[in-house]
Formats: sequence, C-alpha cells, structure tokens
Amino acid sequence: MNYQQILNEIKSELSSIHYTGKVASYIPELAKIKPDKFGMHLHCINSGHYNFGDHIERFSIQSISKVFALTMAMSLLDDELFKRVDVEPSGDPFNSLVQLEYENGIPRNPFINAGALVISDILISLLKEPKKDFLNFIHEITGNTDIDINPKVFLSEKSYSYRNAALLNLMKSFGNIKNDIETVLDFYIYQCSIAMSCKELSTAFMIYANGGKRLFDNEQILSSRKVKRINAIMQTCGFYDEAGEFSYRVGLPGKSGVGGGIVAVHPGQYAVAVWSPPLNPKGNSELGMHALERLTTLTGLSIF
Amino acid sequence: MNYQQILNEIKSELSSIHYTGKVASYIPELAKIKPDKFGMHLHCINSGHYNFGDHIERFSIQSISKVFALTMAMSLLDDELFKRVDVEPSGDPFNSLVQLEYENGIPRNPFINAGALVISDILISLLKEPKKDFLNFIHEITGNTDIDINPKVFLSEKSYSYRNAALLNLMKSFGNIKNDIETVLDFYIYQCSIAMSCKELSTAFMIYANGGKRLFDNEQILSSRKVKRINAIMQTCGFYDEAGEFSYRVGLPGKSGVGGGIVAVHPGQYAVAVWSPPLNPKGNSELGMHALERLTTLTGLSIF
Amino acid sequence: MNYQQILNEIKSELSSIHYTGKVASYIPELAKIKPDKFGMHLHCINSGHYNFGDHIERFSIQSISKVFALTMAMSLLDDELFKRVDVEPSGDPFNSLVQLEYENGIPRNPFINAGALVISDILISLLKEPKKDFLNFIHEITGNTDIDINPKVFLSEKSYSYRNAALLNLMKSFGNIKNDIETVLDFYIYQCSIAMSCKELSTAFMIYANGGKRLFDNEQILSSRKVKRINAIMQTCGFYDEAGEFSYRVGLPGKSGVGGGIVAVHPGQYAVAVWSPPLNPKGNSELGMHALERLTTLTGLSIF
Amino acid sequence: MNYQQILNEIKSELSSIHYTGKVASYIPELAKIKPDKFGMHLHCINSGHYNFGDHIERFSIQSISKVFALTMAMSLLDDELFKRVDVEPSGDPFNSLVQLEYENGIPRNPFINAGALVISDILISLLKEPKKDFLNFIHEITGNTDIDINPKVFLSEKSYSYRNAALLNLMKSFGNIKNDIETVLDFYIYQCSIAMSCKELSTAFMIYANGGKRLFDNEQILSSRKVKRINAIMQTCGFYDEAGEFSYRVGLPGKSGVGGGIVAVHPGQYAVAVWSPPLNPKGNSELGMHALERLTTLTGLSIF
Repeated sequence: MNYQQILNEIKSELSSIHYTGKVASYIPELAKIKPDKFGMHLHCINSGHYNFGDHIERFSIQSISKVFALTMAMSLLDDELFKRVDVEPSGDPFNSLVQLEYENGIPRNPFINAGALVISDILISLLKEPKKDFLNFIHEITGNTDIDINPKVFLSEKSYSYRNAALLNLMKSFGNIKNDIETVLDFYIYQCSIAMSCKELSTAFMIYANGGKRLFDNEQILSSRKVKRINAIMQTCGFYDEAGEFSYRVGLPGKSGVGGGIVAVHPGQYAVAVWSPPLNPKGNSELGMHALERLTTLTGLSIF
Repeated sequence: MNYQQILNEIKSELSSIHYTGKVASYIPELAKIKPDKFGMHLHCINSGHYNFGDHIERFSIQSISKVFALTMAMSLLDDELFKRVDVEPSGDPFNSLVQLEYENGIPRNPFINAGALVISDILISLLKEPKKDFLNFIHEITGNTDIDINPKVFLSEKSYSYRNAALLNLMKSFGNIKNDIETVLDFYIYQCSIAMSCKELSTAFMIYANGGKRLFDNEQILSSRKVKRINAIMQTCGFYDEAGEFSYRVGLPGKSGVGGGIVAVHPGQYAVAVWSPPLNPKGNSELGMHALERLTTLTGLSIF
Repeated sequence: MNYQQILNEIKSELSSIHYTGKVASYIPELAKIKPDKFGMHLHCINSGHYNFGDHIERFSIQSISKVFALTMAMSLLDDELFKRVDVEPSGDPFNSLVQLEYENGIPRNPFINAGALVISDILISLLKEPKKDFLNFIHEITGNTDIDINPKVFLSEKSYSYRNAALLNLMKSFGNIKNDIETVLDFYIYQCSIAMSCKELSTAFMIYANGGKRLFDNEQILSSRKVKRINAIMQTCGFYDEAGEFSYRVGLPGKSGVGGGIVAVHPGQYAVAVWSPPLNPKGNSELGMHALERLTTLTGLSIF
Repeated sequence: MNYQQILNEIKSELSSIHYTGKVASYIPELAKIKPDKFGMHLHCINSGHYNFGDHIERFSIQSISKVFALTMAMSLLDDELFKRVDVEPSGDPFNSLVQLEYENGIPRNPFINAGALVISDILISLLKEPKKDFLNFIHEITGNTDIDINPKVFLSEKSYSYRNAALLNLMKSFGNIKNDIETVLDFYIYQCSIAMSCKELSTAFMIYANGGKRLFDNEQILSSRKVKRINAIMQTCGFYDEAGEFSYRVGLPGKSGVGGGIVAVHPGQYAVAVWSPPLNPKGNSELGMHALERLTTLTGLSIF
C-alpha cells in the first residue's frame, strides 16, 4: 500500500469503531466541538502530503503548544533551562500538585502544566512581546501568517484556570516563578488557545522530523542537537500518564492536546497530525491513538 | 505547691533549658521578635489569675485565631459546616496540598491552613462586615475592646502568601471556595495578624474551659455542646503534625501559632496561655510545649 | 435518667436504626458472625454495672488487643519505646504502607497495624513466653482466667496476612523489626484472635478509667502517669482514619476492632464496651459509634 | 572517526573524569567490586565488534536481567501479560511501594522491581524449570553456554531481600502473585545474580537491535513486532527515575543494573554495553551514562 492507501485504510477501519471517549468539557468552548470531527494529515519528507477527513479545519491545539514553547525556550537558553524544569516522565496526572510539592517546586517535565507554566515564565523574562513573538514563531515554522488564537477559547479558559493558578502560586512559593502570576497565566492560556489544522500542525512539526530545518526552504530553525532532545522529551513525556502506552503502541515521539489533536514525528521520515475530539480516560484522543498505532503498523516503520 | 508556686517552678526550670528552636522567619515582621520573650498566664475558674514573665505583652496570635474563626462559624451554622471541612487529624504538615488533592478539595480539619481558609470563606458569606465582626467577637469574649491587628504583620504576611493562594485556587477548582480568592486571603491574613497577650488569650479561651460561658459575667457565648466539639477538635488537630505528641505529653485540648503562642484548656478548671517565640521542627513553641507539660505534671491534673 | 435507663434508651433508639455497614469479611471466620448481635456493658467506678443485649457473649477483640500490647510494652519500657513507634495520628488508612515508606519504617502510632507489629516485636524480645504472658496479662486485669483465643479465627487470619507480612518486611528492611518475621506475625495474630465479651472488656479497660488500678482489689497495674499517656494515644489514634470524628462525636478515649467491638473510658468515671459487628466505611462499628455518642450526650458527661 | 577511534576517544575523555558515585553497597558481595573497573563493547550489525577496557570481565547484571525475563514472558504470552503489569514510566524510585498501593497491586512497568517480580511469577507458572529455562535462554541468545549465576551474589542477595518480600506480600494481598512468595523471590534473585561481560551483553541485546533475530545465524528469537515493544518499554522505563534524562542525553532504548552495567541498542545499527560500578544518585552507572552520551554524540546517530 502507498501512504494514501494506508490513510484510506485507517479512515475506513476507524469509521466502524464505536468510541467511548468524551469531548473535553472543563471549559464550555471546548465542550461545543462536534465529537465526530475526524481528520489526519501525513507530511512526508520525500513524498509530500497525504490526508483524509477534516484535516484542514482548525481546532484548539491546547497542550500541543507546549512543544512550540519549549522549542522557543531551548533556542534562547541552553541546559540552564533544565535547572528550573526536569525532563522525567510524571507518574501522576498532568495537573498534579503532589509531585510539585514533594520536589520543591521543580516540575517533572516541560509538558505537564506546571512545567509549561515555568517555560512561559522563562519566555516572558526573555521576550519583548511574548504573545506576538510566540505567534510569529508559529507563522515562521508553518509559513502561514493567518494562524491565530480562538478568542472565545481564550476567554473561556481564563474563567476556569484555578488549578493552574494553584500550580503557579505553589511554584512561586518555592521561588520558581519570577514574573507576575496573572501575566504568566495569561500568556500560558494564550498559547493553548491557538487554533491550527492537522495540515498546519504537520508542517509545523516537520522541523522535528527534519533535523531542525523547515522543509519548504531548508532554513535551520533549531540545531539538530536540540531537535533530538525535544524529540526525546516528547517520547518520554508527551502523553501525560499514557506516555508509555503511546510509546509501546505507536513508537514515535509525539504530543497530544485536550482539543483532540495528536502530532507525532518519525525523524528522517515524516510528521503526522490527527484530530478527533473524544478523549480516552487518560486525556488523549481515543481515535487519534488508534490511527497512529495503525499508521506505524501498516507502514512497518517505527523508531524502534 | 499552689498554682503561683507551680508557675514559678516552671519559669525557674525552663530558664536553664537551652532551646534549639528558631523564631518563625517566613515573614520579616515575625523574624524580628526577640527569641527570649517568655510569658505564661493561667486563668482558673475558681481561683483567679497566676502568671510570670512577658504575659501582658501582645504578640501575633497567628493560627490561634483559627479557634475563634471556627467558633464564630459554629455559632452560625450547625453540622452542615462539616460538609466543607472534615474533623480528622492530618498526617501531613499544616500547609500540605497533597491531602487536599487526594480528598477533592475538602480539608482534613479547620485548623490546617486549608480548613481555616474554608472557614474564612464561610464567614465572608455569612457576615456583613467580616473583619469588624471578627474583631468584635474577640472584644466580646475578652471584654477588652482595644485588641487589634498588627498592621505591619498584616502587610508583611500579604506579601508572602503564595502557598495559601495555591490552597485557595486548588479548593476553588473543586468548588469549595465560594468568594473571591483575594477577599478570602485578605480576611484570613487579617485574623492571623491579631495581636494579643497571654493574659488576654487565657481570658478568651475561658469560654472553652467554662462550658461556653464568659467567666466575668456568666454570659453564654456558645452552647456547651458546641464547646465540647471545639475542644475535641483542638485535642486531635490543634498542633499540626504534633497533635499526638501534645496530647501524649500535655493531655489537654489546645492550639498553637507560629508567633510562639500556645493556649490550652482544662474543661471545668482553667485556661492557660504561654508565649515563647522559638519553634521546634514541627512549628510549635519549644518552651511552650515544655511549660504546659510541666503544668499538667506538677498539678497532677489532666483530662486523662 | 439513671445509667440503666440511659442504656435502655440507647438500645431502644438504636433498634430502629437501619444500619448500612457490613460485617468484616476479609477472613471467613469473621464473615460468619451474625450482623444483628448487639450488646453494651457500662462499668462505673462508683456505681457498678449496667448493660443490655449480647453483653456476655464473647467476640473477636481484634485491634482492641493493641491497647493491651501497648500497656505491656509501656510497663516494661519507658520513653525509649517511642523511638521505634511514634504517637501521631495517621491520616492514612490503618494498614497503609505509604506513610511507613516516607517515614523510614517508623510507624505513626502503636494502634495502626505497623505500630502494633513493632510493639509485638518488642514484646517478643522482652518476654519469655510472649503468648502465655499476654494471655496472663488479660487474665490478671479481668480476674477471669478462662479468656482465650478463638483458634478458628487464629488459623483463618494466618491465611490472609500478606499485607501484614508486607508491613513487617518493609520495616525489617529499615531495621525496625528485630525478630523473625514469621514469629512476629504469629504473635500479632494471636493477640487479635482473643475472644472477650463486652463485660470482660469493660472490666479490663477499668484500669485506664481508674488511674492504673484494678477496681476489684485496688491493685496498681500501671502507673497513673503511663495510664494518662495511653488514654491520650487512644484519644488521638484509637479509630484509624476516624479518630477525629469519634473525638468530635463521643469525646472519650477509646479503641475499636474490626470484630465490631468498641471500648471507651471516661477517666475517673467509667469504662464502657459495645459490640455490633457491621462496620462503617472507615472500619469502625456503625452502631457502636452511635451508642457511645448517645451515652455521652444522655449522661451529659465528657472529658471535654 | 571510525567506531574504534570513537571508543578510544570515550575511554580517554572519561579516564580524566572524577566520578563521585558510589558502588552499590546494599549487599556485601556487590560492595566488594573495585570501583575503577571500566569496559565498553560495541557490537555493530554491519561492521562487527569494537571495545576497550574490562569488556570481557563478567559482572553481576542485576536489573538488566529484567529485559530477558520480559522477553521470555512476551514470547509465551500476548497482550494479556499487560493486565498484570503496566507499561508506564514510574515517577517513584525503583522499589517504591507507594505506587503499588495506590494502583491496587498492578506495577507501573516490568522494569521496576515490583513489575519484574510479577514477570517472575508469570514465568514460574508457565515454565517447567524456570531457572534452567532462563539460563538456557541466555545461552541461546549469546551462543555462550558457560554463562551462569554468581553463587555468592545469589546467597548475599537472598539475605537482604526484605523490601522485595514486602512488594511480593503486598501484591499477593491484591491477588497479583499466584505462586509461593519464597519461590518467586528465589527465582527473581537467581536472575539478578547472573554474571555476564559487556561483550556477552552486547551480543545478547543484538536481538533487540536486529528485529528479533540473532545476528550470528539469523535465527528469529522474537517477532519484530514484540521487539519494537520491548524497545519502547526500555526507552520509557529502562532507567528507574532517570529514564527521561537517559532519553534526553543518550536517545537510545536501554537498561541499567546496580552492578554498574548499562546496555543500549540502536535498532538497525548496533547494541552496546558499558560497565563502571560507581552509581549516580539515581542508581545508574555514572560513567556508563557519560560513555553512552558521548557515543551518540560522536557518532551523530540517535533514534531521534
């Protein structure tokens, strides 16, 4: 089968699966999304684009934005970054305060909420206009300048951010947040509110598949050494409390968001994004996990 | 020995103890207190007042205020209060978020910070002018209308309240805080900032020794049934992670504060307050614990 | 109402309560007990015996035996005992390994399983014939020499002791168990298997109500100082994760067992035992808790 | 640089590093090992063997044996295996009981002690002669039939196995251990006591680099699908609480043991083993981590 046939096969197989997951409902704007949205976009280094379904419709990227934020922070700082956030997988759910308290305000990794809040704090200290610069970075790696936040999601999320405010206050009590809590929270939620399509996400993640270079003009965005490290962190920490399961079943570095998106990369081969809003009990897209497992099985390719 | 001889004996014995504790230093205003302040005031139902040392100097009552707040809440509400805060001792340190997260935002008891913040939230919902009413209540049970907050402590504490803000945000994410976080925090810190002397505290706590009645005019402030319950909570939860040790060594219901004060009651007999700022590793006055242990040993009286 | 009238009233009130608890079923022998067994025996220092129901039928005392074991250990050792077991209430369920691991093998108190296993280990090191000596001690304080273990319960319990074996192995890895694990486990289960009636238990606990003296011949079994300390530990730690609730509702030091028994003392006044097998979700006799709450309410007496 | 030059460079660089780690001392036999032992063996699919130092001296493989045990279990069972052990990284240290208690006796992954004990229990149920069959499997994948246990390590380890006995008893209380505890413990310790050299380990791990086939005769030992899954588990769980750090710095699936060995594979390229006894605070070979980080840096190859 060629790639398009494989994607057709995945679409066909999964259309008959009766998913049991629920769309994220902790904020009203996300709860409104239709559960049967389903799209996938595969972007191969050597052979271009393959896709099906709602792959050009934008959705809330949510935690997928944490990869972009980490990338910006790593392009500005070197290993000193990891004095303020660790790179270990977290045995606890993504927003747990328990670990943070036992480990004196140092989050386990940049992809749990606490870690992403520290990364946001770091970016605020380093960037002139954090929101604008963040959006510009996404424009730069996608080549698409009309990507923006969904303002309704942004406002909705602002009203339900007590737990993230708790994380920020706890870390501030340990001295690991330098800026004003409201400012950090606002910037963090801004990042989560960005809307992108599967097609745009697979283009953005191409830099992680392509040794740090944009594919469309071969521009080096991040050193290949740093790209490898980001991929390693995605591999061990990209799926909250299901990182091992994703590694076991799919075998690729990747990152999910509660908007129902998952992006993964096969270094040297491709970047792929899938979107299906219903989430499994661990908070990852139920069909998205299936689709990516079938992709690596049917292509016979995996990093392992 | 009569009571004054017993107090003299305690003063004499403890003056030779080399304490190893440190004065609370988490806020600058508390760190300034001289460590060798030491006073004790015993107020007996049948035989009046006994004391030594700095017993009429006011100090920051801090967590001792949690008993007054609980008393006000219990005078306004019945057992429904305990749907929002439990009455079990906490195995964790007094400001732990771990327990709160595992138990869905319901604090273990009203004397850990989280529980006192819920009590503050409840009082804000029930009282017209929470701060004024709270101060009035203390004036009422002491008969002393010039007791007030220490404004420097109040402001100092406001600047170092990230951990309490974390507790509030976490509980709000579980729906267990109804009012604005800033308002609750402000009222809570106000209570902690009240300054009272050992003499005033032993008079205030007389209501718990005297079945809910003020001793000076026999006015019933709280029902004897509710007084018993507050004493029971003090017995099991009054000393953070050292409640068992205090019960074991002293054998009286009581409450400590990081300002170095401890107040205890022997129902039907007396209320007693002691003040010495250096704290043991569990956060309770080191000499205060000793003094009260010697008191129950030398009087031969204990509730057990 | 006199005491017998109060007990009759309690019996009458509780006979109409529809209990929802379940008889302990973790070992087959306990699961066989009829759930409607119900008896109570009040033994007053000044006015003798009052009772109702199945108060002379023996049942498995289970964890109530931990008080006798602690008493024997305290009569043989002084405060050095508390280097190996603490006196703080435990926020976790009675057989939790979590706390033990965080606190390096030192159990929180002698009334959780881990603590009682350490006490058993200590007694094995100090006594010539631990089982015989333990039974003799119970004969001595009750004046009743035919009290013995229930051999079926003993054997049944031996087959279901993996969790206690886990606790022992964990504490041995920290160096806090000195004897052979099988020996300690065997002696511990022996203690739990003793069968006594409410009448016998209230006589046995009279030493804690009566300053350490047997009531029937005024013999001093334990110093009054040590009795006070045992009562203090019962007050803060006697009811697993419900110590605060029992203190709040009943206001007396006491100890429960999963056989459905609860014994409590009012120092200087009485010892009281109640038996009803169905347990509430925290593992304490559901009707037993009610009965004792009514007793302190109707008598108007409490240590607080 | 060719591979031998790279290994020479690593040896030269690391000889000047002042390591601060300590040799494992929890059992006397391991504590006797000389800390300056240091060897490395790289086995490439296409270009043969490269090595330096003590690469043919056998040492205690300890937890590296867990990979062989998992491989045997996966060759006998399919996904049903993962009902009894999960595949998620563990945030807690390798022998923690905490996680096990919260998650009802299901270990987080097969490479923490609890998980390996469950795997041992499964193998005992499935194999006729577990010890003999286990050793045979190692003989089979190395082609070397004189590999055996170190009997002194075996006996030494048997005397210090209280914590593993605690894990077994706890899991048995949850029903997740089917065989006798002593039998499981004995088999588990047997596996840990096997002694192998870096050269032998790199040959054994070649099956994970070579799609499940022995390199020397192209015999398929395990399906390539199952090999990918074992590699995925090594990637996320192979280094206790340092899996993320290893993934970040080295970027290969691998497994360490407290004997000071680390083995890693680059699928399709090579298997590599390194041995240096001093361990870093997380329990992994300090120099071993460095050596492998340098290897992937100097070769410029990584799965990411």
